[in-house]
Amino acid sequence: MIKVGIIGVGTVGASVANILEENCDLITARAGKEIKVVKGVVSNLSKKRDVNIPLSSDVNDVLDDPEIDIVVELMGGVEKPYSVVKTALANKKAVVTANKALLAYHRYDLQEIAGDIPIGYEASVAGGIPIINALKVGLSANQITDIKGIMNGTCNYMLTKMMNEGVDYAEILQEAQDLGYAEADPTFDVGGFDAAHKLLILASIAYGIDAKPEDILIEGIENINQDDISFAKEFGYAIKLLAIAKKIDTDISLRVHPVLIKTEKMIAKIDGVMNGVSVIGDKVGETLYYGPGAGGDATASAVISDIIEIVRAGQSSPMLGFKKPFNSENLKLASKESINSEYYLRMQVDDKPGVLAKIAMILGDYDISIDTFLQRPAAQNSVATLLCATHNCLEKNIQNAIKTIEDLDIIKTNVTMIRIEG
Amino acid sequence: MIKVGIIGVGTVGASVANILEENCDLITARAGKEIKVVKGVVSNLSKKRDVNIPLSSDVNDVLDDPEIDIVVELMGGVEKPYSVVKTALANKKAVVTANKALLAYHRYDLQEIAGDIPIGYEASVAGGIPIINALKVGLSANQITDIKGIMNGTCNYMLTKMMNEGVDYAEILQEAQDLGYAEADPTFDVGGFDAAHKLLILASIAYGIDAKPEDILIEGIENINQDDISFAKEFGYAIKLLAIAKKIDTDISLRVHPVLIKTEKMIAKIDGVMNGVSVIGDKVGETLYYGPGAGGDATASAVISDIIEIVRAGQSSPMLGFKKPFNSENLKLASKESINSEYYLRMQVDDKPGVLAKIAMILGDYDISIDTFLQRPAAQNSVATLLCATHNCLEKNIQNAIKTIEDLDIIKTNVTMIRIEG
Repeated sequence: MIKVGIIGVGTVGASVANILEENCDLITARAGKEIKVVKGVVSNLSKKRDVNIPLSSDVNDVLDDPEIDIVVELMGGVEKPYSVVKTALANKKAVVTANKALLAYHRYDLQEIAGDIPIGYEASVAGGIPIINALKVGLSANQITDIKGIMNGTCNYMLTKMMNEGVDYAEILQEAQDLGYAEADPTFDVGGFDAAHKLLILASIAYGIDAKPEDILIEGIENINQDDISFAKEFGYAIKLLAIAKKIDTDISLRVHPVLIKTEKMIAKIDGVMNGVSVIGDKVGETLYYGPGAGGDATASAVISDIIEIVRAGQSSPMLGFKKPFNSENLKLASKESINSEYYLRMQVDDKPGVLAKIAMILGDYDISIDTFLQRPAAQNSVATLLCATHNCLEKNIQNAIKTIEDLDIIKTNVTMIRIEG
Repeated sequence: MIKVGIIGVGTVGASVANILEENCDLITARAGKEIKVVKGVVSNLSKKRDVNIPLSSDVNDVLDDPEIDIVVELMGGVEKPYSVVKTALANKKAVVTANKALLAYHRYDLQEIAGDIPIGYEASVAGGIPIINALKVGLSANQITDIKGIMNGTCNYMLTKMMNEGVDYAEILQEAQDLGYAEADPTFDVGGFDAAHKLLILASIAYGIDAKPEDILIEGIENINQDDISFAKEFGYAIKLLAIAKKIDTDISLRVHPVLIKTEKMIAKIDGVMNGVSVIGDKVGETLYYGPGAGGDATASAVISDIIEIVRAGQSSPMLGFKKPFNSENLKLASKESINSEYYLRMQVDDKPGVLAKIAMILGDYDISIDTFLQRPAAQNSVATLLCATHNCLEKNIQNAIKTIEDLDIIKTNVTMIRIEG
């Protein structure tokens, strides 16, 4: 029998313990051995929890228990779980974690510390979707050229509702908070940071590239409004928060931001709280993985798949997918300014003669040519909303053009820019 | 260095050899060792092939070569590759195969013969999509309740074209043949047999259930016409050839047939030659896997992923996903008659009074109630087309009702029935 200790018995931890009990026969047949949760650690022992396992409030009751083979870390946070996981590894226990923040900062340290001791983290990205395994194993013959992930269910739920029901951002955020999809402080989700953590994990498996959240471009969905939604609808786009990795020669561009993307693309069809990750490999072409990105049982499904894999054979593939360092291509993180994209711009301007000409001239000065232009009639105060989409241009140029436009006294608010994903 | 021999160097075999060469540095880093194809076997040595490997026409040049670690079987057929794979295993060589027909008939024999010697077969189902690995590893915590697969690109291409362009079956079949998507004898694809082979492989991993193609319901797309397509469009359905596995209590229903399925379902959105597999697990809910189901490089991507996994760690999970027999639920194959579904019927009838009443009465006699009814105006010869969709009923009842209706002298052609997937 394989004995498991869970540190952090919240929704996911309780699901892990309960599923291992409920599907015990099946899981034993698949793993070859019975797997049993023998101890759980919680911070607050007096809170009632729906599990049949002995609970303790001391992590050392799991970490120092010589009977425990596998430690499941579900604490949340970064430095405290890092220390817990290091102790577990020092005590020769395999580790399974769902903690994307921990991995966003410490995945390479952990890989080195672990050596041959297995660390599973399928649950850290896109919940129940086995995307880690797909990248590490299923697509291992490929140079990965593109990853496009909808990996934050809160944002996708909000954007889908804004698109389908014409609801405003503030209203839908309140609704998401009432439903428990968004936290009281929603920044981690709506600001793109959660998706960025997940992207960094995938990028390590795809490219062997080490980067931290502060190294990459992260923009959230806070500025999207119904003007953008109606523009998107009119021109056949969905608006999605995408986590993007692109390989261009030896440059790896990693970024999280909202995009306009044509509705016929498979990734644009993923709606509501669901997650999806599209991966393009140089040989296989596009494959896409869709499913629930959160929820106790769905996340526990991924945690347990790691446990079963460890029981079956230890860790078959190396933690981050590379058995040896991969430097032959000298891959490096692209600068934020090197993005090349089409862009959508929204601005509010005085509704008077010559305004359009001024803006068009500035764009032209920065070598930006316009693909689509839409001016809505001025609603009040003689303020008109201008919406435009550009042809492909350099990020540096669009940023500079926006700064120049924002300096005009005819501009009423900041310019909102959304990248268009081709 | 790991040495590979390929038996059958056609499109896929050539891609395997070439990708291992082209992505050599990357694959070596991921696998931990260099992997090299050292020999290929072909039936016709005089045919020019686009590979840089020594070729032979004798399988024993690979099977008996003590230097070769892994044999890749890409011959096609059933009994000949079965014998080749058995010899490879007897010679302690790991095997990777893309041969779904071989596995549809001999997967349990091979698992037993192989013992601890790895057999990889990711490429046998849905080409480049790592669905085998997802089921064996990613979803291993779950009771699988449903699998719905679009796993034949030829059929999906044809049905998509019929839907989007109003093309007739015969015309689109000819086009698919001209494009090389369909064989001169297209029965294996359009008759559903190819999808059935793949379904049986997935069902073994999901349920541990042994079944052969002749044990299950297999219907093709040959009878679908533009009347069906227009009915589907009018009521919000797509028409897809689905390979279906459903677990209802201890009954496992395995079947391949066309379905009407609501266009908002993710699986209904998979168009053209692409493949997709939706899997519902009791804990994770629905996950879906999308990608290219055929093509030299896409299939080779899956073949090489198996090779890399074998090089990394041998076979980490057991061939068919179960380390021990799983009998605790006494799962058994459901009878073909036990299906419970909604049904769509198309029939051509004399356009005269009382006809509709007769048909409605027969359906009522078999306890079948009608959900939707559409009668198109008679075009010529006073023959009218009746289209109807039923509420849920037993397969036995609809089959008997169809027989009774077909015996009426007012019926001009056989009744076409398509199941509606809820």
